[in-house]
Amino acid sequence: MIIGFIGLGHMGSAIAGNLLKGGHELVAWNRSPAAVERLVARGAHAAQTAAEAMRCEVVFSMLAEDRVVEDVIVGSGALAAAHSGAIHVNLATVSVAFAERMEALHEDHGMAYVAAPVLGRPDLAAAGGLAVLAAGPAEAVETVRPLLALIGARTWPIGERAHLANVVKIACNFSLASMIETLGEAGALAKAHGVEPAALYEVMTNTLFAAPAYKTYAALIADQRFEPAGFKLPLGLKDVRLALQAGDAKHVPLPVGSLLRDQLLAAISAGDAEKDWSALSQVAFRNAGL
Amino acid sequence: MIIGFIGLGHMGSAIAGNLLKGGHELVAWNRSPAAVERLVARGAHAAQTAAEAMRCEVVFSMLAEDRVVEDVIVGSGALAAAHSGAIHVNLATVSVAFAERMEALHEDHGMAYVAAPVLGRPDLAAAGGLAVLAAGPAEAVETVRPLLALIGARTWPIGERAHLANVVKIACNFSLASMIETLGEAGALAKAHGVEPAALYEVMTNTLFAAPAYKTYAALIADQRFEPAGFKLPLGLKDVRLALQAGDAKHVPLPVGSLLRDQLLAAISAGDAEKDWSALSQVAFRNAGL
Amino acid sequence: MIIGFIGLGHMGSAIAGNLLKGGHELVAWNRSPAAVERLVARGAHAAQTAAEAMRCEVVFSMLAEDRVVEDVIVGSGALAAAHSGAIHVNLATVSVAFAERMEALHEDHGMAYVAAPVLGRPDLAAAGGLAVLAAGPAEAVETVRPLLALIGARTWPIGERAHLANVVKIACNFSLASMIETLGEAGALAKAHGVEPAALYEVMTNTLFAAPAYKTYAALIADQRFEPAGFKLPLGLKDVRLALQAGDAKHVPLPVGSLLRDQLLAAISAGDAEKDWSALSQVAFRNAGL
Amino acid sequence: MIIGFIGLGHMGSAIAGNLLKGGHELVAWNRSPAAVERLVARGAHAAQTAAEAMRCEVVFSMLAEDRVVEDVIVGSGALAAAHSGAIHVNLATVSVAFAERMEALHEDHGMAYVAAPVLGRPDLAAAGGLAVLAAGPAEAVETVRPLLALIGARTWPIGERAHLANVVKIACNFSLASMIETLGEAGALAKAHGVEPAALYEVMTNTLFAAPAYKTYAALIADQRFEPAGFKLPLGLKDVRLALQAGDAKHVPLPVGSLLRDQLLAAISAGDAEKDWSALSQVAFRNAGL
Repeated sequence: MIIGFIGLGHMGSAIAGNLLKGGHELVAWNRSPAAVERLVARGAHAAQTAAEAMRCEVVFSMLAEDRVVEDVIVGSGALAAAHSGAIHVNLATVSVAFAERMEALHEDHGMAYVAAPVLGRPDLAAAGGLAVLAAGPAEAVETVRPLLALIGARTWPIGERAHLANVVKIACNFSLASMIETLGEAGALAKAHGVEPAALYEVMTNTLFAAPAYKTYAALIADQRFEPAGFKLPLGLKDVRLALQAGDAKHVPLPVGSLLRDQLLAAISAGDAEKDWSALSQVAFRNAGL
Repeated sequence: MIIGFIGLGHMGSAIAGNLLKGGHELVAWNRSPAAVERLVARGAHAAQTAAEAMRCEVVFSMLAEDRVVEDVIVGSGALAAAHSGAIHVNLATVSVAFAERMEALHEDHGMAYVAAPVLGRPDLAAAGGLAVLAAGPAEAVETVRPLLALIGARTWPIGERAHLANVVKIACNFSLASMIETLGEAGALAKAHGVEPAALYEVMTNTLFAAPAYKTYAALIADQRFEPAGFKLPLGLKDVRLALQAGDAKHVPLPVGSLLRDQLLAAISAGDAEKDWSALSQVAFRNAGL
Repeated sequence: MIIGFIGLGHMGSAIAGNLLKGGHELVAWNRSPAAVERLVARGAHAAQTAAEAMRCEVVFSMLAEDRVVEDVIVGSGALAAAHSGAIHVNLATVSVAFAERMEALHEDHGMAYVAAPVLGRPDLAAAGGLAVLAAGPAEAVETVRPLLALIGARTWPIGERAHLANVVKIACNFSLASMIETLGEAGALAKAHGVEPAALYEVMTNTLFAAPAYKTYAALIADQRFEPAGFKLPLGLKDVRLALQAGDAKHVPLPVGSLLRDQLLAAISAGDAEKDWSALSQVAFRNAGL
Repeated sequence: MIIGFIGLGHMGSAIAGNLLKGGHELVAWNRSPAAVERLVARGAHAAQTAAEAMRCEVVFSMLAEDRVVEDVIVGSGALAAAHSGAIHVNLATVSVAFAERMEALHEDHGMAYVAAPVLGRPDLAAAGGLAVLAAGPAEAVETVRPLLALIGARTWPIGERAHLANVVKIACNFSLASMIETLGEAGALAKAHGVEPAALYEVMTNTLFAAPAYKTYAALIADQRFEPAGFKLPLGLKDVRLALQAGDAKHVPLPVGSLLRDQLLAAISAGDAEKDWSALSQVAFRNAGL
């Protein structure tokens, strides 16, 4: 299948690579050309514009945030250039409100819109081990299912309304942020009393909290290994904001979400904007004078 | 070995049963006699006083909170009656400050004090599947290790200062409470947008958060199955208070802990004091009008 | 002077009335005509469009929020129709980011932009007793100073950058919301122990907190007199959001602001959207089961 | 009248001085003798023990916290030495639970117990300008009313149950702490946008918040004048804890109180334990990188 692919950051490049490995032809576009060239070296075709990539029967996009998706897909005329009947698979974590807007715009254009945000960091993406949350018109989801199987270990169907996949994704990332903050506070409490955070985390991640996310993040925090960033702290703040906005739209208070917002802002003010979002944990240690 | 056992609530009875099954003789005491009788029916001896149970070479106790431990072990004269050189294994979740006081009192009396708080609910205790956090004088911990192996799936050594096992236990329960609150907020966010919390939790607990605690609690919350309580909500509040107090003692702010305190108080004010502490999650749903 | 006036809600009508009383001619426009008619009955001229009002040498506007200001002033072509060299006095509480955008748009058009958000509720506005926070080009502020003196008891100059008046206004409203929440929590604490909130507030508002805002709001809360609303709760939420956004833009954590957001959302979810924002206080009472 | 006076810290010395100025004889005791000597130089008699001071017909005490009151009044035997029928006026800010215990102990001893916590800092105490919150048996309150008039500008009767005066006092100090935190956050928001906190505070304290507490504290914060401390930060933390404990006892969530606790702990961890509690405001500035 000839697949358009728009957006080749860390995550996008890893995912596109797995589509290539799966035997598909890729027409790839990225704002800066270096990432396209790396993919071309692996067999992809370079698109000159986003619109060119958007003209394939199936198009994946992985762009950073609402505004970028708006610019690249809508503002640039790419959507207008797309074939009616084609399928757009948006892998990005966008806001619920924007996802609803995208659903409507694609429907107006006669293009199927599938939201397929993914769970996992770049290394997992490269290994094809992501969890994919897929929602959209049933037929379109069915069509792209073999492609999603190439990029993830498992696809979780979330129903026919695309934006609900974003709701689930946002709730997952909110839960991750809460986990990081909690590991930070628990670790600071332990350390202040003379227990190494690593010792606490070893117990936690081998008993009650023996889960992939806990193991990954507890190790980063215990080792204070925040660079290079797998997922930069301001992106984490963006995702927490998405949760707060989604809550706001339905009058759902999210006190943990609010706390996370403030701690992430404090982390940025403390100079950690280039670090992995697991550095959020350090706010708790710093506030305790540790 | 002849083992004293003081305190036969849900957890204590289950643990004592496993010591009996392991072939040990038990001299058991409990404030209300019914639980003793049930254990006597399984082969234990009934002690007439806590002091009588305390005179064994090894004594386990599982009492509800600081004040009760103080009354039963210290106030009643049980500790004064204990043999010098004997070992007291305190399974209870007590405050860090009180644990330090107990260490000192036992040392003064020449009795070894081992803190061995456990992770797990009554069903896990009955199955001998608890995680045991053990700290205290190395020789004493070594002596009781075979006994701890009967009551838990694994023993985690936390060092020679007994109260540090309580620090770890408190940090773990704090993390559990945070998880419940987070599941509640994430679930409320999902539900308000039309995603069933159970669908969200299925994704979470099979991917990022595929951990025992998440699976157990997400199921309780999705089914709103808060009675009968495995661990009553006011006990959860007690444990969050222990975390806050331990933080206070070392000037460690715990903003998630503070939030948990307030939400647990709101849950009690809403009438949920007899429910399982997973009912904490309902505060988030109620505050969203769901 | 002939003054354009755009936006005749509760506050706008009261303020426009004071300009009329001061002997000025008014060319007034409002989205719904009833309010215009009431002002015409007092001597104003009715403008058929916002642009018509905008063509005066001095134009006041009092519109509900960013989006409405954008639609009415920019989108409708009113700004494009304004005379170069004229002055626009924006009384509304808009976001800092939007205020900056308005400054730029007016400068491009050659029109002076004065931000003059006001402190006070409709009754104070009617009495000409508002506090006016004025910022903008010095000459323009000087020109409108006699007009501001008609609508307020005192004008506070905030400098030449218009958006800074909005920063101050937003900080003031944030402080008001914090005061309401604090009165609610303090009142709930008192009531739970058997002290009437009114008795507590009487002490507070005659000693430490003998300030107009405390007296006004403590009386509303003590009497639970939340209707008719002087300032509806969702408007309070809007203002707290403005504070949070202004904080976000500069990485300023605002934990009290975050808490206020969540409590206001809870108040709306509890059905209080039509009430005065002092009903925020009831969240604290409800959460305590009072 | 011959009045016993126990506890001569900053506040106690100032208050005792006003009783002397009012023409009364004082029998004064303090843990460290220097403060007694200063008062003797002004005409007081030195008591050798707290019990000696406690034997007067009316005894005032101003001690730092529950534990000290317990030690000095109960533990030392002073209460046991008091005359039946005498009156004890406790000026200290103690916990609600401890106040209830003191009521009971004094009633058992046949001594009237009046709780008379005061609002105001040492300079106001010296000027006789405190607000006095008085509760206790009506006859006893009536008897000491002329004395309370010497130490305060006004006495606020809170009823016959002494501990309710402590409830009101604790709610007032909680409100003060909330005000400080709010001034800090509002000031940080302003400063980050280029508005001097002093300019914001000038508007606030001359309009909506034209109250003594706001004027006093806004000036301290604007000038960052935190030393010498009028009321040290750990005492503020103590008072916030009293509010949280009083809330806990009746299941009243106090989210602002919880936030204050964490911010005060952060302030102490940042090294501000010797500063005035208005230094709490600096946490907001620091967390914003200001």
